[in-house]
Amino acid sequence: MTAAVKVDLCLVGIGTGNPDHVTRQGVKALNAADLILVPHKGEGKADLAELRLQLCQELVTNPATQVVQFDMPVRDAHDPDYPSAVNRWHDAIAEVWLAKIRAHLPQGGRVALLVWGDPSLYDSTLRIANRLALQLPLTVSVVPGITALQALTAAHAIALNDINSPVTITTGRQLRDHGWPESADTVAVMLDGHCAFQHLPPEGITIWWGAYLGMPQQLCIAGPLAEVCERIQAERQAARAAHGWVMDIYLMRRVVA
Amino acid sequence: MTAAVKVDLCLVGIGTGNPDHVTRQGVKALNAADLILVPHKGEGKADLAELRLQLCQELVTNPATQVVQFDMPVRDAHDPDYPSAVNRWHDAIAEVWLAKIRAHLPQGGRVALLVWGDPSLYDSTLRIANRLALQLPLTVSVVPGITALQALTAAHAIALNDINSPVTITTGRQLRDHGWPESADTVAVMLDGHCAFQHLPPEGITIWWGAYLGMPQQLCIAGPLAEVCERIQAERQAARAAHGWVMDIYLMRRVVA
Repeated sequence: MTAAVKVDLCLVGIGTGNPDHVTRQGVKALNAADLILVPHKGEGKADLAELRLQLCQELVTNPATQVVQFDMPVRDAHDPDYPSAVNRWHDAIAEVWLAKIRAHLPQGGRVALLVWGDPSLYDSTLRIANRLALQLPLTVSVVPGITALQALTAAHAIALNDINSPVTITTGRQLRDHGWPESADTVAVMLDGHCAFQHLPPEGITIWWGAYLGMPQQLCIAGPLAEVCERIQAERQAARAAHGWVMDIYLMRRVVA
Repeated sequence: MTAAVKVDLCLVGIGTGNPDHVTRQGVKALNAADLILVPHKGEGKADLAELRLQLCQELVTNPATQVVQFDMPVRDAHDPDYPSAVNRWHDAIAEVWLAKIRAHLPQGGRVALLVWGDPSLYDSTLRIANRLALQLPLTVSVVPGITALQALTAAHAIALNDINSPVTITTGRQLRDHGWPESADTVAVMLDGHCAFQHLPPEGITIWWGAYLGMPQQLCIAGPLAEVCERIQAERQAARAAHGWVMDIYLMRRVVA
């Protein structure tokens, strides 16, 4: 691939597991691509990888679009230096993309990647794409998609915010390490593998929890945290055992006494 | 309409002005409706009302679906008691919906409303729907849509959050009254009619601003707040004069010294 060969990389947000979360813009972007890169099952969540392929089969009608799978590199979970391990992992993913693009699009062209949820929210695809831009002339565009947070509020038919009030979106790790964010009355928590809500003093807190949002196996529980805290943990554990994985998210509101 | 007559009300998020923001789920929900209620131009933003009608014309292929316009009540801008004026305004909107439903669906059925962005984020439709539930047997469902915040990050091809870092979503009024939210490094600001960012000490703050996101007239400016603050205000004012209205949003990140 020479320096004159250009690649347009489009990150397409596909929502959270319901193929109907994809927007019309997303469908058009997939069909405008010369090459769609889809990860193999290396994620450890076989049905998620499968879902991306199913989406392509259902939505891609352009016969000129190639759908190519790649082996997702595995992050070194034993490296005690977490940021460094993530950095090397992202480098490795960029290398795999580059090899696939060189093999299947030697003249350059349009490449699409399917991104869970929306590429802007707790997702690394944009950061990996920026690495690729160091290797070849690249333009990056983004097609927004439905986030898990929106799937959660839709499933519960609730608003994210109180009127004219702020909302803090944070991670399970932040909540565990720093507690309830200062000056926030509404907190949405993503990437929480360990039910960090269980460590909060539950008084005055209402929680809306959801797992597998948008999927047939969707679970939703809402109520005062003191009342539903244990039930959420139990249902989450049972579902994880049944499916082999779980992805969940929750929203909490605090009534200031 | 007797107590036995039921209404299923579906709030369909339609994104921010690009008809292609609508999801496949949104298209299906519109076509599953017996009645779609669309506001007349009372919003003062004629092309937004027009856009909803265009969406229906483009997306609704079910001949049994009625598209009916209603006159949007006007909020009393002179009432010094703002929350009370908003309450009465929402009551009035619920009454108009109810009258249209009684007139066009005397036997009950499925009603859809097109909601700008996503029904969960700084939108009143869910609250108005809850008023309607006091008047007739009602189930409410939500189809999530692309928010202005996602259209903003997509247009700039940036992530909303830093790695494992929280994000605060707030309003222009909050930012003006309370300044930069405590303990937040990333702040997204919605509903800001007065460029509240101009009152912040700009040192160390980067801003990504967008107006008319998703529309042909989309504007985007990004850079250090100290450098682009005046340009954003000038372009916003010029665009508002040209179009008669402006809807904008911005994201700011602070580098802690």
